[in-house]
Order: sequence, then C-alpha cells, then structure tokens
Amino acid sequence: MKVNGVAWRSIAEDGPHAVRIVDQTRLPFAFATLRLESCDEIAHSIRSMQVRGAPLIGVAAAYGLALAMQRDAGDAALATAHAELLATRPTAVNLRWALGRMRALLQPLPPAQRAAAAWREAGHIAEEDVAINRALGAHGAELIAAAHSRTRQPVRVLTHCNAGWIATVDYGTALSAIYQAHDAGVPVRVWVDETRPRNQGLLTAWELAAHGVPHTLIADNAGGHLMQRGEVDLVLVGADRVSRSGDVCNKIGTYLKALAAFDNGVPFYAAVPSPTIDWELADALREIPIEERSADEMRVITGRDGDGHPAQVALVDTSTPVANPAFDVTPARLVTGIVTERGIARPVDLATLFAPTRAAA
Amino acid sequence: MKVNGVAWRSIAEDGPHAVRIVDQTRLPFAFATLRLESCDEIAHSIRSMQVRGAPLIGVAAAYGLALAMQRDAGDAALATAHAELLATRPTAVNLRWALGRMRALLQPLPPAQRAAAAWREAGHIAEEDVAINRALGAHGAELIAAAHSRTRQPVRVLTHCNAGWIATVDYGTALSAIYQAHDAGVPVRVWVDETRPRNQGLLTAWELAAHGVPHTLIADNAGGHLMQRGEVDLVLVGADRVSRSGDVCNKIGTYLKALAAFDNGVPFYAAVPSPTIDWELADALREIPIEERSADEMRVITGRDGDGHPAQVALVDTSTPVANPAFDVTPARLVTGIVTERGIARPVDLATLFAPTRAAA
Repeated sequence: MKVNGVAWRSIAEDGPHAVRIVDQTRLPFAFATLRLESCDEIAHSIRSMQVRGAPLIGVAAAYGLALAMQRDAGDAALATAHAELLATRPTAVNLRWALGRMRALLQPLPPAQRAAAAWREAGHIAEEDVAINRALGAHGAELIAAAHSRTRQPVRVLTHCNAGWIATVDYGTALSAIYQAHDAGVPVRVWVDETRPRNQGLLTAWELAAHGVPHTLIADNAGGHLMQRGEVDLVLVGADRVSRSGDVCNKIGTYLKALAAFDNGVPFYAAVPSPTIDWELADALREIPIEERSADEMRVITGRDGDGHPAQVALVDTSTPVANPAFDVTPARLVTGIVTERGIARPVDLATLFAPTRAAA
Repeated sequence: MKVNGVAWRSIAEDGPHAVRIVDQTRLPFAFATLRLESCDEIAHSIRSMQVRGAPLIGVAAAYGLALAMQRDAGDAALATAHAELLATRPTAVNLRWALGRMRALLQPLPPAQRAAAAWREAGHIAEEDVAINRALGAHGAELIAAAHSRTRQPVRVLTHCNAGWIATVDYGTALSAIYQAHDAGVPVRVWVDETRPRNQGLLTAWELAAHGVPHTLIADNAGGHLMQRGEVDLVLVGADRVSRSGDVCNKIGTYLKALAAFDNGVPFYAAVPSPTIDWELADALREIPIEERSADEMRVITGRDGDGHPAQVALVDTSTPVANPAFDVTPARLVTGIVTERGIARPVDLATLFAPTRAAA
C-alpha cells in the first residue's frame, strides 16, 4: 500500500542477503525502515515487535531461516535457527507454519542447495501472503457491500488492533476488506479501537488516514456502548490463530468485543489467511499458549512531546504490579464467520472449506 | 482514608466560606489540594474532574450551592447556581439528587436564612455520604468474606474505574467493601482496570497501594481473558446512576466486563449509595444522557517524564477523529446484585428494599 504516494511493503528483499522492514515500533510517530542481515536480527525484530502481525511474522521468520542458511546450511544450524525463530512469539501459528514449511523443504536437500532454496521459498511465502490477503479482502469487501445494499448508509465497521497491510506483507486481513470496499466506492467508516497496551489502533488509524478511509479512534472501553446504540454494523478483526472449530485467538480484548457484538446482534467476523488456521488445535482456550509480555508495555507509553518529537512517559512506576496477557480466545459460538482466501466460512464449516488442502498437505 | 499516615477526606470544609478538595487531575503523580471559595470554582472543579466520582460530585455541588447562597441568597441566584451546577456533568444522578435536596430545603426559607441552612445541609450530605459508604462497604465485604469461605484462597476482585475513597467523601463504594474485607483479615487481591481514556485505574492503584491492598494493574482489554481462565472471583464496580430496575450506568467499558462476567459465571456487583439510584428511570439505555467528553482525553496522556515530573505526550494529533463517550449502561439482566447501605439487592428487588424511603420522600 502507499505511504505519501509511494508503494511500500512491510518487508521486502534488499539485495540477495538482507531484507528491509518498516520499523513498526516507531509508527505512527515516525516512518522508518531497517535493514536486517541475519537470523538474529530477524528474531530480535519479531520479539521487539519491529515486525508484528501474525502473517508478517511468518514471512519474516521464513527470511530469518533463509539468512541463517546463507551463513551455515548444516543440519545443526537449521535446527538452531528454527528453534530461535520459533521461540520469538508463542501465540501466532503463522510463525510455526512458515518455519515448518521451510524446514520440510530444506531438510531433505543437500546443504549446498539450502541457501538458494530457502531464499526462493521465503519469497514464495511472501508473494503468497500478498495474493491470499488480496483474495480474502475481496470476500470481506462483499460483506461490507452487502451491508451497504441493505442500509444504503455508510457501513460502520469496528476493528481491534491492527490487521492492516503492515501486519502482513501487503493489503492486510481485516483492513484488506475495508480497503477494497472503499476503493470500490462502498462508503465505509471505521471505529478504531485504541488497543492498549501497545496502541496498535494508532497504526490502524495511520494506515486508514494514509489511504483516505474515514475513521474514528475510540477507547477499547467504548465499543460495547456503540453497539448498544446501534452505531456498529459489523465487527471485523484479524487473528493470530484460529482453531479448526473456529475459535479465534486474537489481540487481547477481542473476546470482549465479540461478546458485545453477540449481545447486540452485530455480526462478528475474523479475516484470516489459511496459514493462520491451526488444524491441530481442538480446544483453543486450553491449548493456545497466551504470551505474557513485559510489564513495561503497560507502564510506559510513547507519544509526541510538545515539539512533535517521539517521547515516553511512565504511567506507573515499577512498584505497581502489572499483568499483560497479549491475546485472548473468542469461542466459535460468538463468531459469525471466518473470512478466508477461499470464501467465508461459518466456524463449523472451516474444515469443509479447506478439506482438499488438508488432504494434500 | 490515609495518605502517608495522615487521614484525609476528598472534600472538607476549610473555614465557613470555602472547601478544600484533593485535586484529582494531579493524582497519582502529585498529591495536592485546592481551596475553592465560590460556586463558579466548584462548577469548574466538577467539569474539569478535579473532583470526580458520582457521590463526591453530589457533595461538591451541595457546597457549591451553599457558597452561592453566601454571596446572594435570592431566588434568582438560587436558580442560577442550581442550573450552573446541574449542567457540569450530565450522567451521574447524585448531582441532581444533591441539588434537588438543597433546593427543596432552601426555596421555602426566607433568603436571610438560606446561607446558614445551605452550609449546614451540605455538611449533612457529606456526613451521610461517609456513613452510607461505610455501611454499604460492610455489606460488600461480606460478599468477599463469603467467597473466601468457599475457596480458602485470596479473593480476586476485578474493578473498573475508581470507586474509591476519593470518588466519595471517604471510604469509597466498591473499594469500601475491599478495604473493610482487607482490614478484617480476609485476603483479597484486586485486578485494576486501567480505565482509558482518563486512566482512573491509576487512582485506584494509588489508593490500594496507600492502604496496603495487593493489586495488579491490567489493560481494559484483559479482564475477559482473566475471567475465561478462572482468575476472577468477583467483579465489583461503582456506578454513576442505577435505574429502579437495576440497570447500572457506570464508566465506559463496565458493560464489557459485565458481559464477560456473565459469560463465565463470575458474579457482577455494583456498589452504590442510595442517592445513586434514579427512581424516575424506566429505560436506562434510552433515558440516561451519556456524556461525550473532550477528544483531548484520548489524544493526550499524562505520566511522568524521565526526571519523575508530570508530563504529557500526544498519542494522535487533532487530524485524527476521536469519539469519547464517558459512560455505558449494563442491563440489569447481567447484574448479580446491587450493594447498598441497606443490604444487597438483586436488581428486581431494589424497589422493595427502598420502599419506605421512597414513600417518605
């Protein structure tokens, strides 16, 4: 997508031995890129959330493994890099999926062929991510268009966290649908949850503003009230992991919005590329590891100071105990549908929709 | 309650012509008081949230009317002061209740007697607030003690916003129950919602730390996840207005926690002094005016800079549209009980519990 008229991807090859990423820890206060040249640098960028978003961290990890193979393509190095990257974030399944795909390709190859094959495969994963998110966004856009056909009014979509182009290689997941509806001339307005404690809603507001999509920033607390008042037509979020039964693990607070949507008859959809679906998962609430992130994410907040420069203030000091779970699970019973690249499934239908892929895999 | 070992009330008479308040806009970063000498100064303190919390703004408004009477006790001045104070905050009913009680007393009196009578009555309202909150806290503490009797574990209470002693004259509402349980030796641990955008959770954390009650600050997004994981025994909040049928209007986001509590079988209680009950209210969702506060509350956040001094940063600039509804309504069907000074009512029983009062009023 474009920033100031220039087309960007959140990750791109920068020559044959490095990738360039948008540093998301500096957004929306500064737009800056970083060149990453090693598996360690990639792992750090995922842990620190310089790259974030389930689809994007899968792609970044694939490149991390490819960079590791350029230094040492032996079996031990492959295992070490795989383990290092897998440990960066526990919740999103795309990371495990991308690393598993890379390892399955590389392990049977002679070490001498691994570096080239890995780089090629990481590129394929990146390109597939773009294609998948374009396709799922088209399906999601139909939901928005259908709502507009019913009401003849601008469609008011509430979203949580950032499921935009910077959370993927391009297009985004939930926002892919919004961008495509907007570009097709369907009037759409977005309620953007701030998404404490990391405030990814500011990234979403930044993306939507750059693309010209009308939006309004709200506190995470406000969405239920807006739904009670009939001011939300649709809730559309991304996900970090979806179980085969349609449980949606996404940014902390998503479950609360799903409850409010259900209580008010507002449709709740998660937009996910198929690598976000964990076919091995039976009981999402019990089985998905929920990442507990640093207390500093709650204690310290970044904004701009009076001169417009990025600045931090502390909300509480280290004497205040803090808990910071990063994700929650929305049970399938609260989910109207899962928007995928192959179409929109009711949670119970997911396995049916992807049956051929699963048989082939 | 005590601050650094010294007993404080959130509002107190400072001679016969002024009150002294704790300036809550500076908490928890600084503990400072303000001397207010006029109705205008009181009105400003309510609008700006230097004083906040439904019970406290009722008391502050009563003193505002009393200070107005000291300058001009005529009928026109009474009407003007009443209107000015009533317009400061639209949602909490305590304001209307206290002003109505003051006006009902003053209007029949000859103007020469009004100033003295008004000062006396404001004092009565303040003392009653203390007594009421002590009483309702004792009832609430029984809930906590009963939970401890069942589990023999520390009772984990989740609270939203600040329903503490600084939201009242003393003791608090929800926190009155927690303080009394703690003081009685019942082990209690408090999950403190941050409560964006005004971050009143930081006030709650400050109060609890000052009193030595174990607590953990969490993002507003986290409560649902904690309830899913069985880490919350009880949700206990205050309220700004409760309908006669038991609908609870409280700080924005309360409804989301009530939904999660209901979904997970966690009891949800609101602790309210009877002046917070609006007996005239039939349909809370339709009839309570929800205050829309300044967008700056979302855009700008206060903390401490690197030197420990209070400092502000902007999260977004004025180009980002913001909505900032300050309250929401939790329907009675989600409310386990209303904790009052006369005991704990199931929502449908409220009218029964207060029948004598209402007949006398």
